[in-house]
Amino acid sequence: MSHHADYARQLADRARHAARHLALATGAQKQQWLHTAADRLRSRSDEVLVRNEQDIASAPHHGLSSAAIDRLRLTPARLESVANALREVATLPDPVGEVIEGYVRPNGLRVERVRVPLGVVFFIYESRPNVTADAAALCVKSGNAVILRGGKEALHTNLVLYRVLKDALVECGLPEHAIQLVATPDREVVGELLKLRGLIDVTIPRGGKSLIERVSAEATMPVIKHYDGVCHVYVDRDANPDMALSILRNAKCQRPGVCNAAECVLIHSDIAKTFLPRLAALFAAEKVEIRGCPQTCAAIPSARPATEDDYRTEYLDLIISSRVVSSLEDAVAHIETFGSHHTDAIVTGNVAAADRFVAAVDSAAVMVNASTRFNDGGELGLGAEIGISTDKFHARGPCGLRELTSYKWVVRGEGQIRE
Amino acid sequence: MSHHADYARQLADRARHAARHLALATGAQKQQWLHTAADRLRSRSDEVLVRNEQDIASAPHHGLSSAAIDRLRLTPARLESVANALREVATLPDPVGEVIEGYVRPNGLRVERVRVPLGVVFFIYESRPNVTADAAALCVKSGNAVILRGGKEALHTNLVLYRVLKDALVECGLPEHAIQLVATPDREVVGELLKLRGLIDVTIPRGGKSLIERVSAEATMPVIKHYDGVCHVYVDRDANPDMALSILRNAKCQRPGVCNAAECVLIHSDIAKTFLPRLAALFAAEKVEIRGCPQTCAAIPSARPATEDDYRTEYLDLIISSRVVSSLEDAVAHIETFGSHHTDAIVTGNVAAADRFVAAVDSAAVMVNASTRFNDGGELGLGAEIGISTDKFHARGPCGLRELTSYKWVVRGEGQIRE
Repeated sequence: MSHHADYARQLADRARHAARHLALATGAQKQQWLHTAADRLRSRSDEVLVRNEQDIASAPHHGLSSAAIDRLRLTPARLESVANALREVATLPDPVGEVIEGYVRPNGLRVERVRVPLGVVFFIYESRPNVTADAAALCVKSGNAVILRGGKEALHTNLVLYRVLKDALVECGLPEHAIQLVATPDREVVGELLKLRGLIDVTIPRGGKSLIERVSAEATMPVIKHYDGVCHVYVDRDANPDMALSILRNAKCQRPGVCNAAECVLIHSDIAKTFLPRLAALFAAEKVEIRGCPQTCAAIPSARPATEDDYRTEYLDLIISSRVVSSLEDAVAHIETFGSHHTDAIVTGNVAAADRFVAAVDSAAVMVNASTRFNDGGELGLGAEIGISTDKFHARGPCGLRELTSYKWVVRGEGQIRE
Repeated sequence: MSHHADYARQLADRARHAARHLALATGAQKQQWLHTAADRLRSRSDEVLVRNEQDIASAPHHGLSSAAIDRLRLTPARLESVANALREVATLPDPVGEVIEGYVRPNGLRVERVRVPLGVVFFIYESRPNVTADAAALCVKSGNAVILRGGKEALHTNLVLYRVLKDALVECGLPEHAIQLVATPDREVVGELLKLRGLIDVTIPRGGKSLIERVSAEATMPVIKHYDGVCHVYVDRDANPDMALSILRNAKCQRPGVCNAAECVLIHSDIAKTFLPRLAALFAAEKVEIRGCPQTCAAIPSARPATEDDYRTEYLDLIISSRVVSSLEDAVAHIETFGSHHTDAIVTGNVAAADRFVAAVDSAAVMVNASTRFNDGGELGLGAEIGISTDKFHARGPCGLRELTSYKWVVRGEGQIRE
């Protein structure tokens, strides 16, 4: 067995062992850990910021853009918000032990489905250092041990954050290996960890599409995936045009670089003549490029013709595709053909149209008269999320504490036997 | 592309298309289909029985034992019970459209998690022909299209059952490709189907361990697996011995060849002296061979010494391993080390012991003062099951209609945008 395989196996064995103990921790212990960790992030902020400086100093060698370097940078204020996020997770209900359903069978058996942790989570991410603390908080709160693997450009920062979080575990009497960080930038360790079905219960990659595809292809255990968000806003014949424009501005422009931003507007042909000029004015003011169908381009001289590729593209930018459709069914068919089943919205005042759209569109979130931007753990009331699943299996849409759990059947009797 | 790949792709494309329509079918349509299919099984029973005779006639060429041939054989009475099983599925609540949870956010958004079908199920089985009808009933009722792949020794029977079920779909205005059967015994088609992630949402193998391992290794989509049932009954210090013996007799002897039968009894050392002779008498009367730890063997002369392999073995036979443990914690440790996380029971009158066992044993079903045999979809009130999952992801334990579903988030507003 290689050095990397040994290391991966050690990480997984330790996580498994820690998970068994963590599953039995009380909610109070886990809350105490979250508050202690938040306190220690403050009291050890100098140490954290020094390590972060090391990453910032070597960032240009990793070819990071100035925007990426800014995302990597921790400041006292940012560290404070990392600590506050831990305190917020502390306030969320403990998912472990929740009785999902319970009933009594005719023979008197009392049956319950009780929520339990999944076990060991392998979390791979490319994002900002605050994700290290967020992911650890969600995993430990839901009773799971976590193996963290962050980006190499944030390794020093992640290592010091990990040490602070781990020391707080020990301080609170929780198993120290409930949180581990892959301490080497070697890619091979990830490959070895992805082989360890049976020791690792789920892998969650969070980052670009290539990362997710690579992890999905290699993993021997279940993966919670987050692919593209090619999100649509369909403006129905019976839409309030002011509402439609307000939702479109929000869905496209409020934060164009995120997965739940709109990438395509579909417009019912009966209102296209009056709506398209207003759409043109809105997006001209917001500096959004329109790539449209022939009808769009005829009404909006500045629009470029859209290709089929445009309709499939997650721009993550101030660009939107636009298509006039002759019916709600055509809108649904377009979404089925070109969408990514992430988040799709209808704007309509017509109950029947809303109901048909909700029933027919097979996406993680379907919005009626609301912005696509609401498909988010915080906005939907989950409190915090470790990611957004574009899968249909196990979890769909935002993944919060509950989505990091499984359940067991608990059956209590007085000596019942089967006839 | 090979002939097999073409065929697999055609099956999956047709299933995908059918699934889109089936997802919108009403509960009444699906009920009507189940009743119509049951009626047609009766009215076409001659046709079914003739085809079944063909399989029976060639069964010796497939090397089937006389017990296996008996399981393969359909009679008018058995066909009647297949039809009745369809009618029973008709009485179950429709899982599609169930609102799992719903609430209003502070900004007025109304959020619901609504149950939807998974999409396309690939079901691979080796079992009796009634499974063909059961699986089709559960999949269609939960709004899923299904691709069925039965054993080659039952191909003629499965084909005629499939035709009856499919003709009933057409008769009821449901998509005919909602049910398809792989019409060739070639193994290659299965391999091609297992490549079709994106078209097939889940694969469910039901059969021996080698089938499940092969499918799990090859599948590119999620798999609901059912591995071993190495199930334990722990007789606590505070157990009622009569209750413990009754549960052990039921758990071991009522149907030894099934997954939720007990394979090991663990006995607290404080009661071993009085309990072991009674255990010996029970299992002598039931002709159950005991393979025991040194203490068991000292008390029961007929017992053979148990090896570590014995403790890991799913006997599926009138054999049980027996071990005296010095504490509840030792029992839990034994179950963790040697068990398969399927079904484990404690017999005790002590509340604290029951609670500790329930919390610490990480199995799909944990029983208190009840037989392990109750880990079954029918017994736990799910109505019917397509299998029992030994996974923790998506579904655990018996998989009924709900376990064949996913959900979507439906968010309704009055023009809300994100701040």
